Amino acid sequence: MATPVQVYGPALSTAVSRVLTCLNEKDIPFQLVPVNMSKEEHRSPDFLKIHPFAQVPAFQDDHISLFESRAICRYVCEKHIEKGNRELYGTNPLAKASIDQWLEAEGQNFNPPSSTLVFQLAFAPRMKVKQDEGAIKQSKEKLKKVLDVYDRKLGETRYLAGEEFTLADLSHLPNIHYLVSADDDTASLFTSERENVRRWWTEISARESWKKVVDLYPKP
Amino acid sequence: MATPVQVYGPALSTAVSRVLTCLNEKDIPFQLVPVNMSKEEHRSPDFLKIHPFAQVPAFQDDHISLFESRAICRYVCEKHIEKGNRELYGTNPLAKASIDQWLEAEGQNFNPPSSTLVFQLAFAPRMKVKQDEGAIKQSKEKLKKVLDVYDRKLGETRYLAGEEFTLADLSHLPNIHYLVSADDDTASLFTSERENVRRWWTEISARESWKKVVDLYPKP
Repeated sequence: MATPVQVYGPALSTAVSRVLTCLNEKDIPFQLVPVNMSKEEHRSPDFLKIHPFAQVPAFQDDHISLFESRAICRYVCEKHIEKGNRELYGTNPLAKASIDQWLEAEGQNFNPPSSTLVFQLAFAPRMKVKQDEGAIKQSKEKLKKVLDVYDRKLGETRYLAGEEFTLADLSHLPNIHYLVSADDDTASLFTSERENVRRWWTEISARESWKKVVDLYPKP
Repeated sequence: MATPVQVYGPALSTAVSRVLTCLNEKDIPFQLVPVNMSKEEHRSPDFLKIHPFAQVPAFQDDHISLFESRAICRYVCEKHIEKGNRELYGTNPLAKASIDQWLEAEGQNFNPPSSTLVFQLAFAPRMKVKQDEGAIKQSKEKLKKVLDVYDRKLGETRYLAGEEFTLADLSHLPNIHYLVSADDDTASLFTSERENVRRWWTEISARESWKKVVDLYPKP
């Protein structure tokens, strides 16, 4: 039996979760290799060889080691084009261009404010770090503008890049998961204020590929 | 003669410059369509149809309109794989994975602090906006850490993703251009403090594809 691909990092990391969900969509078995970040294991010389920025996830396959979650997802889809969900990264150049466009919109427009909110609202309290109210307010305002664009787009197509669930949708799951669990005001951004976003979130968060990842999260 | 592709936005926008440099590398003729952002043309209903986030560039080809500069670059390379610089987005899956990895590192690690510095040091003075000294200091510290990683990598390979100039290198050109012109302290991050970064910047900024874009910038 071939060695499964290895994903380094804790499942509860949003970027690690992104890769694991992609591997589940593509039916690729994986081994999750723990990295204890509170013990600074991500700064060890061995880890820096596979992730020079000392972040998670890092990824190892037969022929390659990679970092950056969205790049790992693209690689997994390109390598295993015939396995699992074939639509995940498109089956023709125009579909792929649309997916890349919305995946970049996630990385450049959605991720900066939503990552700040995930840290401030979900992780800072666990780490007993004082919350930055200014950053929370500013990020929420930015996020609302992004979600208004999403809501219009999701009124035209079922998913962000068209009629199929793709990497562009998948990439949003981990951050939204933490935000809808944070507090009612933040949750309402996704679950009540915008009808199409609500319908989309309900649909994408019900995917088996994602539920299997949430099952890996430590229970409260 | 076929209609050339259209790129909407001012050349001096870093994201527009990224796309134009890519088109030059691939020998694709283009028409640059002015968008007067000081007159809010990027918020007009017609423009929002091709760029819902009201940003530049937007891009139109026969079959598709796209936004997000890195997604447009990927599309141009995929569509015109045999034209111009064939190595720009790799010629095999492992090369492409390495390029995607460093293109994501640019988008996620290099771009946030460097874009803040470009705005604060290059655009804010022109727009007579007060500079945020705290943001400048914080972004410079973040950028130094990213460049330290780059310097180690560029001590091992000629370019970020290996021995060829690729989209991963290209994507850095516009921001660094503004930063090396900003002030001596900022320029020194690229031109003296790190030997391999200095060698890399000298090499990539000398490419014809890039010099043609700088020629489009308004003269001081």
